[in-house]
Amino acid sequence: MAAETPEAPECPPESLPGAHMSPAEFRRHGHAVVDWIADYLEGIEARPVLSRAEPGSIAAKLPKHPPATGEPFEAILSDMDAIVMPGVTHWQHPSFFAYFNSNASGPSILGELLSAGLGVQGMLWATSPACTEVETVMMDWLLELLGLPDAFRSTGAGGGVIQDSASSATLCAILAARERATGWRTDRAGVDRRLCVYASEQTHSSIEKAVRIAGLGRDNLRAVACDARGALDPAALTAAIAADRAAGHTPCAVIATIGTTSSHAIDPVRAMGAICRAEGIWLHVDAAHAGPAAVCPAYRWIHDGVELADSYCTNPHKWMFTNFDCDAFWVRDRAALVRTLSVLPEYLRNAATASGRVIDYRDWQIPLGRRFRALKLWFVMRHYGVAGLRRHIEGHVALAQRFAGWVEADPDFELAVPAPLNLVCFRHTGGDAINEAIMQRLNDSGALYLTHTRIGDRFTLRLCVGGTHTEARHVEDAWRRIRAAAA
Amino acid sequence: MAAETPEAPECPPESLPGAHMSPAEFRRHGHAVVDWIADYLEGIEARPVLSRAEPGSIAAKLPKHPPATGEPFEAILSDMDAIVMPGVTHWQHPSFFAYFNSNASGPSILGELLSAGLGVQGMLWATSPACTEVETVMMDWLLELLGLPDAFRSTGAGGGVIQDSASSATLCAILAARERATGWRTDRAGVDRRLCVYASEQTHSSIEKAVRIAGLGRDNLRAVACDARGALDPAALTAAIAADRAAGHTPCAVIATIGTTSSHAIDPVRAMGAICRAEGIWLHVDAAHAGPAAVCPAYRWIHDGVELADSYCTNPHKWMFTNFDCDAFWVRDRAALVRTLSVLPEYLRNAATASGRVIDYRDWQIPLGRRFRALKLWFVMRHYGVAGLRRHIEGHVALAQRFAGWVEADPDFELAVPAPLNLVCFRHTGGDAINEAIMQRLNDSGALYLTHTRIGDRFTLRLCVGGTHTEARHVEDAWRRIRAAAA
Repeated sequence: MAAETPEAPECPPESLPGAHMSPAEFRRHGHAVVDWIADYLEGIEARPVLSRAEPGSIAAKLPKHPPATGEPFEAILSDMDAIVMPGVTHWQHPSFFAYFNSNASGPSILGELLSAGLGVQGMLWATSPACTEVETVMMDWLLELLGLPDAFRSTGAGGGVIQDSASSATLCAILAARERATGWRTDRAGVDRRLCVYASEQTHSSIEKAVRIAGLGRDNLRAVACDARGALDPAALTAAIAADRAAGHTPCAVIATIGTTSSHAIDPVRAMGAICRAEGIWLHVDAAHAGPAAVCPAYRWIHDGVELADSYCTNPHKWMFTNFDCDAFWVRDRAALVRTLSVLPEYLRNAATASGRVIDYRDWQIPLGRRFRALKLWFVMRHYGVAGLRRHIEGHVALAQRFAGWVEADPDFELAVPAPLNLVCFRHTGGDAINEAIMQRLNDSGALYLTHTRIGDRFTLRLCVGGTHTEARHVEDAWRRIRAAAA
Repeated sequence: MAAETPEAPECPPESLPGAHMSPAEFRRHGHAVVDWIADYLEGIEARPVLSRAEPGSIAAKLPKHPPATGEPFEAILSDMDAIVMPGVTHWQHPSFFAYFNSNASGPSILGELLSAGLGVQGMLWATSPACTEVETVMMDWLLELLGLPDAFRSTGAGGGVIQDSASSATLCAILAARERATGWRTDRAGVDRRLCVYASEQTHSSIEKAVRIAGLGRDNLRAVACDARGALDPAALTAAIAADRAAGHTPCAVIATIGTTSSHAIDPVRAMGAICRAEGIWLHVDAAHAGPAAVCPAYRWIHDGVELADSYCTNPHKWMFTNFDCDAFWVRDRAALVRTLSVLPEYLRNAATASGRVIDYRDWQIPLGRRFRALKLWFVMRHYGVAGLRRHIEGHVALAQRFAGWVEADPDFELAVPAPLNLVCFRHTGGDAINEAIMQRLNDSGALYLTHTRIGDRFTLRLCVGGTHTEARHVEDAWRRIRAAAA
């Protein structure tokens, strides 16, 4: 067979176009990229927050075909400015108040860089033990930092794992719930259409998506009524479960939200937990954005009742200075999760797995492969320390509260709902059209970026204070501009 | 409300522990991290490929609690050497021949760094237009580079998207197939247990995992018989489909593999495509590892018949110098995929989405959030050019073929199956125990890393040549050591 194929070429010299980048070249270009990012972060306030690109305008600047031969790195990097930047909405801009933040920080970016530089796979303990063990310890650190229950700790029957997103964490929780409710028969025979899932009307869209992916069918997702604030009504949950049982359905999971996307409503987790315990239903808590508030003892009340949950997730990549992706997901019974997601083909068998002494995180997630994401979480917790994280998160909440105070004091504006943490939902009292116009004008100005929701069927502006570099002056400027746009 | 909360602290000075890392500090520490990686890559051959860490040994070196106050970055970086490195298996070592590679390169690492530095979200076109448009164009470039059918091009009814892994891509394909087969009734009402999926006995474990996640049940995954080489037998597929139809089942998806994980077998995609077209079944092609071979015209035959498929995926993060995660997934009918995975809550509504003129990639994947992964693919294709990628991939195949020739010429060894590309499955003729002992001795030596599979129920060694910096001398040394270990 060897005779039929060409000889292997010798390792090409560095000077050839398309040769591998040598360590020396990597050092040089790497410094240039670090400088590019430092310059970008230094000058970010001069840029319009929201990209003004028209659909197709970025694609039009790219060649139609890949280059025939390799190009110098300098040319590639310079196209970041020429081609990419006009199409970037600056999520790290201190006047980014839209959606929920996806905040990042120097130590996190450098942790991500090291992860890419090592290029290891963490699918099994054996494929790079440090990737698994640092992650397990970091999840225990984070549990302590957030005041989460010991039942989730890896030293007992539980444990934590980093997922790409709360969507994926919630899907894993719903799958484990689906299986536990059916004694793992679904896994073998397929979904029984009588299974059903409960969440509030205000739950995140990823819950519906997970229910659909899991094959349960969206008709089997019950939208439980909320109070005026947007928090689930436990009496309505009890009634819905009873009605389903009477109709021959099998309740398998309840999703509680701590900090809904629309209005930061906080479901009554303790009451929901009591219902789930009594009914034998899996309770998953989605604290994707609000969870990091619990770093501060003053806001740890958001986790009241979480000790009754079977699983919980929050996103350090939203509000804890750890760049996307980094969702933290814990379960009380890791055996249930692993049984739901495990597969062990011959080519993945190894002595460590067979010993039962190690965690193989491939069985805790949808994909097989995984990056060394624990590095960025480790770097963030060490760079800031508990005190630093508390100070920054308290600062965000205080700024949002100051903003809420200004809204309340202004006769032309009102809060749509109370603002317990760092998201303020507010509106001009003049009706939907004026609020939509205010948002449009502000976003077009490039000075800041806000998004909207509907509360009580009224167009409502959302201002979230969670940017790493957002300071008092940015929030003050936002309020000044909001009032000016309304005038 | 403002009066009840503490005043927002002023932005802390840089000197405080736990302050945000300033651009100037980022520049300094970033250079140090780049240098650390350059040093690592320069000295990687001196390290044992496979980590010798004992279970728990890395965790034992980490403090039990997060630090109370922030630490200097120098202390954090120095723990990479003190704590992390003893637990790292070096996937970028040129003598890593295990599993399939997960190769990386300088331009890819720097593309990942820029993605982290920008910290944008690409869930919607509107959340950062460049993130979507660069990705769409890169997927069209890659399609051309691999000689994939025009039906997958974004300019028609198809399109490509970057997923984290082939596992996730395959799950998306199976979900779309499940829905198309039931006219999107599953999505609403839940799984009909008569749905079934077909793949060969040698298919990747992620297919079973996807079938289970999708709620179809593993009893409804048909393991279709293979020939001696490990390729699916199309007559057996036809028979299985007919038997299921006769029994009242609904075939919904067939998975073809180009380059099985165990032995690099290549399913007869053209014949399978003809069957699927006649039967109206979704054909998904999983070319996770082998796909990049098609960069070279000489190996483009592996894609014979792919124009009959409904979807296809391959992993530039395995064999195209783009660090994990970067799976490239194309579909013929993007509307079917989007209809399966779309959700549109109020807080994600925007003018661009409403116009129908843009792609919102959140509807092409499981999670909502997404990184700017197209940057690394763009950087890789530009750094190497078509010619550079061809040269490196041809080089890997030529080295594997040379190795296969040595095995064939040695009376003590044999090929377990033919080696069409860069994976060689071979064994000592002395039986399972000696092969297991050879593998153990080699992996313990630290000089190289091999894994195994079972073929024809015999313990078989696998040697994959796909490391970015693997040269002739590394493969020659591996063969020398294999023979010595057997002696």
